[in-house]
Amino acid sequence: MGKLSFLTNPTSVAVVGASAQDGKVGNTVMVNIRASGYKGQVYPINPKATEILGYKAYKSILEVPGEIDVVVVVIPAKAVLAAAKECVEKHAKALICIAAGFKEIGGDGVKLEADLIEICKKGNVRLVGPNCLGLVTPTLNCTFASSQPSKGSIAFLSQSGAMLTSILDWAHTNGIGFSNFISLGNKADVDEVDLVLEVAEDPNTSVILLYLESVVDGKKFLEQIPASVTKKPIIILKSGTSAAGAAAASSHTGALAGNDIAFDLAFEKAGVVRAKTMSDLFDLGRLFTSQRMINGRDFVIITNAGGPGIVTTDAFETYGVGLAKLSDKTKDALRKVLPEEASAKNPVDIVGDAPPKRYADAFDICFTEDDKTVAGAVVLVTPQGQTQPNEVAKLCVEMGKKYPSKFIVSAFMGGETMIEPCKILRDAQMPVFAFPEPAIYATSALIRYSEVRARPSLASKSIPHFKVDDERIKKIFADARADGRTVLLSHETSEIFTIYGVNAPRTKLATSPDEAAKFAEELKYPVVMKIVSPQIIHKSDCGGVKLNIKSKDEAHKAFTEIMENAKKNGPKGAVLKGVEVQQMVDFSVYSKTVEMIVGVSRDPTWGAMIMVGQGGIYANYVKDVAFELSYKYDKADALAQLKRTKVSEILEGVRGQPRSDIEGLIDVMVRLSQFVNEYPEVVELDMNPLLVFEEQKDGKRPGVAAVDVKITLSGEH
Amino acid sequence: MGKLSFLTNPTSVAVVGASAQDGKVGNTVMVNIRASGYKGQVYPINPKATEILGYKAYKSILEVPGEIDVVVVVIPAKAVLAAAKECVEKHAKALICIAAGFKEIGGDGVKLEADLIEICKKGNVRLVGPNCLGLVTPTLNCTFASSQPSKGSIAFLSQSGAMLTSILDWAHTNGIGFSNFISLGNKADVDEVDLVLEVAEDPNTSVILLYLESVVDGKKFLEQIPASVTKKPIIILKSGTSAAGAAAASSHTGALAGNDIAFDLAFEKAGVVRAKTMSDLFDLGRLFTSQRMINGRDFVIITNAGGPGIVTTDAFETYGVGLAKLSDKTKDALRKVLPEEASAKNPVDIVGDAPPKRYADAFDICFTEDDKTVAGAVVLVTPQGQTQPNEVAKLCVEMGKKYPSKFIVSAFMGGETMIEPCKILRDAQMPVFAFPEPAIYATSALIRYSEVRARPSLASKSIPHFKVDDERIKKIFADARADGRTVLLSHETSEIFTIYGVNAPRTKLATSPDEAAKFAEELKYPVVMKIVSPQIIHKSDCGGVKLNIKSKDEAHKAFTEIMENAKKNGPKGAVLKGVEVQQMVDFSVYSKTVEMIVGVSRDPTWGAMIMVGQGGIYANYVKDVAFELSYKYDKADALAQLKRTKVSEILEGVRGQPRSDIEGLIDVMVRLSQFVNEYPEVVELDMNPLLVFEEQKDGKRPGVAAVDVKITLSGEH
Repeated sequence: MGKLSFLTNPTSVAVVGASAQDGKVGNTVMVNIRASGYKGQVYPINPKATEILGYKAYKSILEVPGEIDVVVVVIPAKAVLAAAKECVEKHAKALICIAAGFKEIGGDGVKLEADLIEICKKGNVRLVGPNCLGLVTPTLNCTFASSQPSKGSIAFLSQSGAMLTSILDWAHTNGIGFSNFISLGNKADVDEVDLVLEVAEDPNTSVILLYLESVVDGKKFLEQIPASVTKKPIIILKSGTSAAGAAAASSHTGALAGNDIAFDLAFEKAGVVRAKTMSDLFDLGRLFTSQRMINGRDFVIITNAGGPGIVTTDAFETYGVGLAKLSDKTKDALRKVLPEEASAKNPVDIVGDAPPKRYADAFDICFTEDDKTVAGAVVLVTPQGQTQPNEVAKLCVEMGKKYPSKFIVSAFMGGETMIEPCKILRDAQMPVFAFPEPAIYATSALIRYSEVRARPSLASKSIPHFKVDDERIKKIFADARADGRTVLLSHETSEIFTIYGVNAPRTKLATSPDEAAKFAEELKYPVVMKIVSPQIIHKSDCGGVKLNIKSKDEAHKAFTEIMENAKKNGPKGAVLKGVEVQQMVDFSVYSKTVEMIVGVSRDPTWGAMIMVGQGGIYANYVKDVAFELSYKYDKADALAQLKRTKVSEILEGVRGQPRSDIEGLIDVMVRLSQFVNEYPEVVELDMNPLLVFEEQKDGKRPGVAAVDVKITLSGEH
Repeated sequence: MGKLSFLTNPTSVAVVGASAQDGKVGNTVMVNIRASGYKGQVYPINPKATEILGYKAYKSILEVPGEIDVVVVVIPAKAVLAAAKECVEKHAKALICIAAGFKEIGGDGVKLEADLIEICKKGNVRLVGPNCLGLVTPTLNCTFASSQPSKGSIAFLSQSGAMLTSILDWAHTNGIGFSNFISLGNKADVDEVDLVLEVAEDPNTSVILLYLESVVDGKKFLEQIPASVTKKPIIILKSGTSAAGAAAASSHTGALAGNDIAFDLAFEKAGVVRAKTMSDLFDLGRLFTSQRMINGRDFVIITNAGGPGIVTTDAFETYGVGLAKLSDKTKDALRKVLPEEASAKNPVDIVGDAPPKRYADAFDICFTEDDKTVAGAVVLVTPQGQTQPNEVAKLCVEMGKKYPSKFIVSAFMGGETMIEPCKILRDAQMPVFAFPEPAIYATSALIRYSEVRARPSLASKSIPHFKVDDERIKKIFADARADGRTVLLSHETSEIFTIYGVNAPRTKLATSPDEAAKFAEELKYPVVMKIVSPQIIHKSDCGGVKLNIKSKDEAHKAFTEIMENAKKNGPKGAVLKGVEVQQMVDFSVYSKTVEMIVGVSRDPTWGAMIMVGQGGIYANYVKDVAFELSYKYDKADALAQLKRTKVSEILEGVRGQPRSDIEGLIDVMVRLSQFVNEYPEVVELDMNPLLVFEEQKDGKRPGVAAVDVKITLSGEH
């Protein structure tokens, strides 16, 4: 039992607004409670009634003699606060607020919801909703839905009430049953994570489906959901993909992040399966109820027709399921039992006149001879002369028992004649579809989930911590802010990266010719000198850059010239901070240079995201980038992320070129993730280009150089 | 009526192998003919019967008194040739060969099919099949399917017989009817194009669906199908995407072409809609039977629930349907009739308690006030308190009549309660779905089809022809072949492009240091020198390239060095033909250079494809390329193709750079398409890089230069 068992399995329920009058919401809730066979105490609350549906009624919550776990509130919004206060006084544990008219209507509703939250929080009462349909658990139905969901092993949680009523109706017709059926409403207190954790503990549930429009707290989700994923598969349809992240973003990284990447990354990280459409959600749900894992990626197709076999092979490629390569031994064994016109290769085409026995032979041979390579079978059945679909269905059930480590999914392609075989399979918890493509789509998702289950848990993952001089960094930020800037200057970013152990050309800000000469001497020649002014963006256009400075005298002179040029050619009123003196990167010692971009943007739900990809002036057009959340981000994550870009192949070394310093690059990425995790005030960061040279086997020279970095701090101090 | 009306609407049918015995294929065919209410003459052919199912039987085709249009052959394969000969003798017009055991089983079957084709061709008998199920047309069912398809307006043609039987069964259960139901079998003579042309003329048919594993003749398809597309929408599920084009390809272009691009391009060019899955095929078919076109791209969503509205908005973005921007006038009018908590923006959320009247108001306001911008409405209905789904369905039908130029598609989301409203809509030929996503997917396809219908026909498109010296080109090919080469050398490609009006640096092949020096002098300095060897692909990798040669002496020396480097570093046994001396492109006169790749590969079905994209040594890794068929390829095609690449933005000019010579680039592309269309022996061609400079407004200098071209001829002479 989870922490909210008082909510999902309460010992007593009160219904504020309970009614004996047919058609009233307060009546429907009572009818549902009774119809669900709820075993606990039921207290209808109604000032005008003495008894409702056979339950003794009370005038107020406070009059109820015993303790109350859950109070369901079905009165109008304006009366809810008073009821909530009584819940607090009565020490009720949870309040399910069915009433609408809160945050979702805006205006006064927002204030009303805030007040409700405050009362409940202070009074230690957990709040579900408001603006929800109620919930159905294995022990209780306290919704106002007009029909009861059939019993099944799917837990469905929805942020939209209308989605729940539609699905309830649709599920009845499609023979889908539920263990839990929960309306999240406005998620003012109890949110999707709380309830997922709860139903993950429910022995009646084999798979958890969610329809979400938002995630309340990304960090909580990432911290807590992975543990539930190891117990039950979680499948989420997240809508609002076209609206999210539409806020204007000024940086490369922000512009490249797109709308919905962060949710994809977060779900992947947490091990959650993401459904793309409503029918996908239930196709996946049905397959996942089998509660079997898949050991491997390669499947054999057993079909009684060629065409569907080809369609299925295409779907394998589309969804990344492997076509098992059958051994010669298997193929020989198949040839012995199959007719001549059959195909003993995968797809195994046992041809149109195949009786059930031929399916059985194909199963036995493939699963026995190629036990190590074949993770399972996709069985295709078309209605032809001798097909006997019912018998084939029974055979699949039998084979499922005979080979418990193999996964069997089937497409019984047809209508009338396939109803009975589908029922046989579903009754045995075996997945069956009308067409091959959704079967393969769902199988591929289960393969990925099986891999998630096999990987080490995110919770136990530890991330190495680099020691850095935090005081110095705070000082740099404070100085910039004192100066009225949110964009750091080059010598500031250079110092930050040096502190974080990232190679960036050392840079110093000189405010006089003498200082410039001194710094040039310190940094070693040649150096570059550039005007420093928040108002001057294109420095070289106004004569504000001097390259290849090789002596004290040159540095001295360059300072004066740059300042004069900037004064003369720069924008009017530009504040000249001085001239930065920077080490020049000596390219001549390297044989290969790849321009990369590494950056950071922040998602409102999921926090900082690291970006890596092909850099240079065309980075925004080439769009060869990959993202990853900075949450628990290590070198393996960085490498996997890098491999999602095309430029990674170039880094690996193509056309006879040496391998680039990939380790150096991913080291920068993980150091950067620590930086942005520890300093949330860094809202955007771009390194473009981050130069990546060939691997430095002797370690004498750096393999990467962050030659141009832009760091933007948040506006708030 | 089409050319094959004697096949689809015959005046007489003979059945060779007709049988009175229940369970025999020859009996099922006879039963189906009779059950289909066929009005013409029926001649059962059976040496042992005098009468079958009430029809007078004949011992052989030759004994039949009248003329025969169609002979259906249901006897075993080995007896088919004799029957075919009798068909010829009797001057029958068509033979439908249901028997299997031909090409599809390999071995002897291949020969048998070739013999059958020859007999029919010589005897002027059109052949359907072999290895097919037969066909159902509005006048006749001569299949051996175990049930009759329901009447409807979908024509379904399938290359897989099992797919037909599955779909037939499935369609019964799902209330889908057919006008034509045709099994293509082995397509030995009558192919998919012949039959599509035929059913496109059928007034009973509103949409044509095909399941194909191959297209017999790509050119015929492209020439003839577009005319049918202007009569009826054609939707194809083409399988075998993972197998096609898997043949090893040596060039950049070949490697980048991938598996299945050519089919996508050909279907797009012909105006055919491509379905990706079996359920997509029928989702599209159902929507397209409405026989309405869509005028525009922007839709309004009218929904009684927020969640499904968001899901639908996401689907709009996924499938490229526009969310209509409602005018202020519309929004004001909506606000007047809608309750306060409703949303007057698109999606128009008329909230959960919406009665049918509220839907009606939303329709009227949006379609009247925003008549110009709103192409139609997506109606979402979830089962809530006052919903009355039946009434809303009737309203949709009424609105469809009231606004004939608007397209209305709906998702009635539910099960039991939505069966009757769905029936109401389907009976009125209005598309309805259970979930929003397939509704939007299908709508987007109809939008594209409506655009196809509005565009000029492919048949009427004329392509300009450049005059070239064909004799000289043939001579270059012949010389290369005489030399035992299929890969042309640089001086040969340079000449070909000069003939075709494409700017390529002049190149000469030197075979001695002295000759190199002489050519260098002729071509004017500076020159580039490169090793010429059919075995050396990446010339610079082995030290086989010297740039910027400025004198006779340097050229002399470079020849020797290049030959030595190639000998030392090149592949063992490489044949060194000499060193090419090439004009060096003077980059200094240009301010912008973009390296592009332009190439050609050949698809076995669809012929030459032009490729364009980002060039350079990393082209194969960057994979920023787009393809187009060279069939009827003009500058507009080339420009549209170019715009599908990311690099096209860079050509347009970003970051203050000038626009590149895009016209010069597309000119090269269309000239190239003429070249490869006229010389089918050119199997592969790569220009990488094709340098594209900034627009040359004065026209004095070329804006493009094909500095490295590889042309491969076919092995056959």
